[in-house]
Amino acid sequence: MSIYRSAKNPIIEPKDIKPSGGDFEVIGAFNAGVVRFGGEVILLVRVAERPISTHPDIVLCGIYDTAERQIVLQEFSKDDGETDFSDPRLIITPSETYLTSISHLRVARSSNGIDFEIDDKPTMVPASEVENFGIEDARISVVEGVIYITYVAVSPFGVTTCLASTKDFQTFERYGVIFCPDNKDALLFPERIGGRYYALHRPVSNLFKKNEIWMAESPDLKCWGNHRCLMGPQRGLWDGVKIGASAVPFRVNEGWVEIYHGVDEENRYCLGAVLLDGEKPWKVIARSEKPLFEPETDYECEGFFGNVVFSCGALFEDGKVGIYYGAADTTVCYAEMPIADVLANLGV
Amino acid sequence: MSIYRSAKNPIIEPKDIKPSGGDFEVIGAFNAGVVRFGGEVILLVRVAERPISTHPDIVLCGIYDTAERQIVLQEFSKDDGETDFSDPRLIITPSETYLTSISHLRVARSSNGIDFEIDDKPTMVPASEVENFGIEDARISVVEGVIYITYVAVSPFGVTTCLASTKDFQTFERYGVIFCPDNKDALLFPERIGGRYYALHRPVSNLFKKNEIWMAESPDLKCWGNHRCLMGPQRGLWDGVKIGASAVPFRVNEGWVEIYHGVDEENRYCLGAVLLDGEKPWKVIARSEKPLFEPETDYECEGFFGNVVFSCGALFEDGKVGIYYGAADTTVCYAEMPIADVLANLGV
Repeated sequence: MSIYRSAKNPIIEPKDIKPSGGDFEVIGAFNAGVVRFGGEVILLVRVAERPISTHPDIVLCGIYDTAERQIVLQEFSKDDGETDFSDPRLIITPSETYLTSISHLRVARSSNGIDFEIDDKPTMVPASEVENFGIEDARISVVEGVIYITYVAVSPFGVTTCLASTKDFQTFERYGVIFCPDNKDALLFPERIGGRYYALHRPVSNLFKKNEIWMAESPDLKCWGNHRCLMGPQRGLWDGVKIGASAVPFRVNEGWVEIYHGVDEENRYCLGAVLLDGEKPWKVIARSEKPLFEPETDYECEGFFGNVVFSCGALFEDGKVGIYYGAADTTVCYAEMPIADVLANLGV
Repeated sequence: MSIYRSAKNPIIEPKDIKPSGGDFEVIGAFNAGVVRFGGEVILLVRVAERPISTHPDIVLCGIYDTAERQIVLQEFSKDDGETDFSDPRLIITPSETYLTSISHLRVARSSNGIDFEIDDKPTMVPASEVENFGIEDARISVVEGVIYITYVAVSPFGVTTCLASTKDFQTFERYGVIFCPDNKDALLFPERIGGRYYALHRPVSNLFKKNEIWMAESPDLKCWGNHRCLMGPQRGLWDGVKIGASAVPFRVNEGWVEIYHGVDEENRYCLGAVLLDGEKPWKVIARSEKPLFEPETDYECEGFFGNVVFSCGALFEDGKVGIYYGAADTTVCYAEMPIADVLANLGV
């Protein structure tokens, strides 16, 4: 496998991002959706922020208040024996779960795909009650000339996927929740297939311990049905515990290539691929037995949540797959590989 | 509150049902959807069956095999220290969860709504891989002259809601999964409102510990979007732990009446009501602070899963709400109350 990691990795770091307000610090800039638009490469970066605590025993949590239309702070004491702070991402009280950071989405632009100019201000921020704990992990699909964004909305109601569209990455039309709790890692296929729109998504069955990739279809991109499980984890392999769609799929001669992420028994996040039938995308033709790409460098192995490479978008151009990926839930990085190597990994 | 329980309760019991095969016993006939159709009251009863075990230490589990198109048996040993049999409904191994019974749906017909003739054979049986562990809890909505059935499909993929339609309760057209894992307690409003179809459903957020009633809308009844949380549990009250929609809602002058179920801290299932705005059904006008109906009789308090009254359907006729309900996850029962009492309970 010939993987080329950019020598400029990480290409975007938290220190490159201006916080949304003076009392916040940026702790993560990662999991960016990507699209080539108007001659530029546009990233929609997930920016995770944490309220700056004024006391070492106090953990502050930023929550978007729907009525106040602003982020308010909630305090938790580390001395509170009933609250669980063991997962760095979560604050778990006996009655409720909170996040330690609140995310928004921010545009970054580049002419060469590596050196990015990042907007000073948030591009998309939480704006409804299903987004009170933040919006995360955008995927960008251009469908019939319209730019659609699927993103994760987190709130006390659960983890959902919402849909928005834009013409200019400045104003956005929002269509609300398209996949209800708990559901993330959702993305739209970039074209109709047999007259229908298709999406991948990742529902959760707690009762049956399942985190699998499902497919849905739609007449209008806003309402979804005919949900089917596309594939589950491969027990004992790199994606043996849970999986989710990552990059918006792209067409090759052999079908649709979907770059997805998998988690193994050690909670290590890698990327692999699945080849889907070009006309019947619910049919799996081939799938990575070994990952395409795994955390190896320092910036992938260490960070807010180490041993993670996680993609929300890739560009397939000139026979190369350019993958934008979050490293260790901390930074945006870039790697590319020839499509021939992806297909070889798939055995086709 | 003037509740009248039928003197003939339970009106359908497991012993009234012919098993689907000689090696099965019927352990539950409950949670029936209801519709008035062709001058009769039709119930679609959930029939739960258990393979008859040949040895006291062996638990048998019936699973629909999609390839074989028949139910196959799987054996579990009670001596296996790694398997959890503590919930009477579940068999939990370290890697998978199974159900102790497999359900199908069976038609029962009555001219007076109390004395039912039950079909000798199953009406709807598991028929796809999302139905391998059975189909349960039908709700029947007549929408623009077509009879639609939402039902719960259980399998190793999770708990989903599927949609089917019928013209005669003999042949059924199936439309697959409309609400993906884990999701149950879904039903369709019986008419378009402002040009759109509406449904209630019950997604689960394990991370945020939520079991709430959501609303979705659709252009075609098969694809659903704009999911919104309608309401959550009322902490400390009869429906303080989890809730779900029960009967298909019906119109009164004041709006839509939805009979829903709630579970309290003692795992007791009661029925209450919510009044929704007639034109904007996502607006809650009033809600039961006290249950309409709670388990009190022997047949409600004792059975496969005691202290349960659970409805999948009601008939609103002549100013009375006739509720068909599952008692103790074992039998079908009937109770009725004047609509005026339901509205009084709601404070309207």
